[in-house]
Amino acid sequence: MPEIDAARLLGDLRRLAEFGRYKTGVHRPTYSPEDVAARAWLAERMTEAGLTTEIDGIGNVLGRSPVDGPRLLLGSHSESQNHAGWLDGALGVVYGLEVARAIQGDPACAGLGVDVVCFADEEGHYGSFTGSRSFCGLLDEAEIDRLINRYDGTPLRTALERAGYAGRPRAEIEPERSRGFLEAHIEQGDYLESSGLRVGIVTSIVGIWQYRILFEGEQNHAGTTRMAVRKDAGLALVRLAAAIDRRFPEVAGERTVWTTGRISLEPGAPSIIPGHAEMLFQFRDADPERLELLERTLEALVADAQGPCHCRLEVMSRSVPKIMDARFQDALEQAAERHAPGGHMRMPSAAGHDAQILARRVPAGMLFVPSIGGISHHWREDTHEADIVLGCQVMATAAATILRS
Amino acid sequence: MPEIDAARLLGDLRRLAEFGRYKTGVHRPTYSPEDVAARAWLAERMTEAGLTTEIDGIGNVLGRSPVDGPRLLLGSHSESQNHAGWLDGALGVVYGLEVARAIQGDPACAGLGVDVVCFADEEGHYGSFTGSRSFCGLLDEAEIDRLINRYDGTPLRTALERAGYAGRPRAEIEPERSRGFLEAHIEQGDYLESSGLRVGIVTSIVGIWQYRILFEGEQNHAGTTRMAVRKDAGLALVRLAAAIDRRFPEVAGERTVWTTGRISLEPGAPSIIPGHAEMLFQFRDADPERLELLERTLEALVADAQGPCHCRLEVMSRSVPKIMDARFQDALEQAAERHAPGGHMRMPSAAGHDAQILARRVPAGMLFVPSIGGISHHWREDTHEADIVLGCQVMATAAATILRS
Repeated sequence: MPEIDAARLLGDLRRLAEFGRYKTGVHRPTYSPEDVAARAWLAERMTEAGLTTEIDGIGNVLGRSPVDGPRLLLGSHSESQNHAGWLDGALGVVYGLEVARAIQGDPACAGLGVDVVCFADEEGHYGSFTGSRSFCGLLDEAEIDRLINRYDGTPLRTALERAGYAGRPRAEIEPERSRGFLEAHIEQGDYLESSGLRVGIVTSIVGIWQYRILFEGEQNHAGTTRMAVRKDAGLALVRLAAAIDRRFPEVAGERTVWTTGRISLEPGAPSIIPGHAEMLFQFRDADPERLELLERTLEALVADAQGPCHCRLEVMSRSVPKIMDARFQDALEQAAERHAPGGHMRMPSAAGHDAQILARRVPAGMLFVPSIGGISHHWREDTHEADIVLGCQVMATAAATILRS
Repeated sequence: MPEIDAARLLGDLRRLAEFGRYKTGVHRPTYSPEDVAARAWLAERMTEAGLTTEIDGIGNVLGRSPVDGPRLLLGSHSESQNHAGWLDGALGVVYGLEVARAIQGDPACAGLGVDVVCFADEEGHYGSFTGSRSFCGLLDEAEIDRLINRYDGTPLRTALERAGYAGRPRAEIEPERSRGFLEAHIEQGDYLESSGLRVGIVTSIVGIWQYRILFEGEQNHAGTTRMAVRKDAGLALVRLAAAIDRRFPEVAGERTVWTTGRISLEPGAPSIIPGHAEMLFQFRDADPERLELLERTLEALVADAQGPCHCRLEVMSRSVPKIMDARFQDALEQAAERHAPGGHMRMPSAAGHDAQILARRVPAGMLFVPSIGGISHHWREDTHEADIVLGCQVMATAAATILRS
């Protein structure tokens, strides 16, 4: 059994968190100087670990094992959300590096190879899973031309120039090269913690269905316009949002989540009745039939919302739930049972991950470690050291099992 | 009885609407080149009408009658909201000018004088009733130092320099000089039109009570955070807004209006549960006791809204309803009955007007003409010509009555 080196693992994670340190977390947006420096440092670590390493034209860091035998790809992404946590994707990248080293160091694993990858922009500062889509052949040059930074408008091409990645070839997956892809990540929720468990084996990554809901009324004076004749688009929005709040619990599954993330009223002045209003609404579930039911429910509520104001539902995106490979789930579960008997569960991932992109080309699996307090995308995000170490050991054991299968 | 000249009145109104023409309305923000040109043109008309005219240090145009006998002040403001209507305050200013001319032209009115005023910035591009507050001694230099344009941030001092008004003295009301202040305005609502009436005699100007309501929750991931443990500040806001929508009709008066003009969720991203949310909420009524009841109702709803999120009510402003002078109301009503028998009503003003500022220093009265479709603060704002002419004649007759009383 390959044995990971806990001190080396934690040391590398702590060192990586120096790049863009923010309070106890990190601020390391895609292609920021801190992100670029972190990728260079990761490439050095991969090279040190005996991998043939490149940073490609989209910023993906790929370390290829020199071994000829069965191979497996491990990794995640290393940039962070703004002012966010030190683990998130960085955990999965350093797990990949440590598992590669552990397997190399285990004579019983001779002839087995681990490739390590660190994707760019999973967090979507520019696109959506930009690095893993590039790696899977799902990102064309025209989209790269089009993408801009969602916070400051910098074109992706400009950012790639500044990072020094422009003009390099983009690495692409070779499905025949490896058995598939394994990714580790913090859970980002509190299912594990609230269940007293330490390892999650991901069964599927939920589908996210995202909508823009638009309301057209009539802008008017907030003093002189009688209540009876108003066409208040903001009020129409509030009524629909309240109707969703009442109705969705009746049709939701145990793990369904739904969120209104943005509301805007126009013109947004205290003494003007809003003539236009918009909300961004999404729901998530791992079950395609549940997603369909939720959409039909939303459509019915929107139909009921027609009145003095016109209400229109626009589909922004509908991602299909991605099932994780059954044999990978079994390997992860056996390894978890070995290192933490009874301390693990199978669970869907309610967040999107690079593994859902990789799953379109190769078998993929995911492992979760607990998030303290369920906190993520915040500088307070953390995981107990013992859980970090345990999760990596489970990955190493599972990887060896998959490579031998 | 002084007789107005309908052609002269309409000609002046049409000419004034050339300054900043926008579609069938005007775009004439305070101290814009168009507003400054319009004030210069109005000053010329007042001088032509035999008034001693000045444009003062805040842009108020004041034409003083040379007559020694009883005097009355008439007027309103001439700047517009952005891309708004051609009448609004301009109507009241040109009414003042025309009534001054009509009274001068009527031998039976010899010895009676009308002063005319055109205030600046009633629409609040910089402050709030900036010109009429200056005129009433309610605007100090420190506030002028502080005020900036709410759309482009230009300091008021800079705008006054550019307009050529800086350094001039600011005219101030002489309460002993006149019987009081009369203002005409479009109704801006549809009470008159929907009642088939042509003249409104304003009984009071409503109080406007304005609040900021803040919700503090916990920002978190919209996928991984279970519904049961969320502290969604946006959802807390929606629930309170929906509770107001249900409860307020039960405690509102016949003419109470209430409006949520702005909602913001932070950070406002589709996949993040809002950790902070705010709404601007206001209600208006002419009855102080009703205003108190509405505030107690709001406070109770805010108290009920405490849950996973903390909800806090901040009072932004509470304006006191301003009662119009009873004798002025009687004079306007008698004049309306004479020129439009049965075609008038007494009514509160649901919008704020310069008259509410003047009422703090002198007796004040207001007259409304109907707004077609109740539309105002929009370039489609309009009033039938016959109603424009009728309203001015009612003002002239009422002014003569007040001057003779």
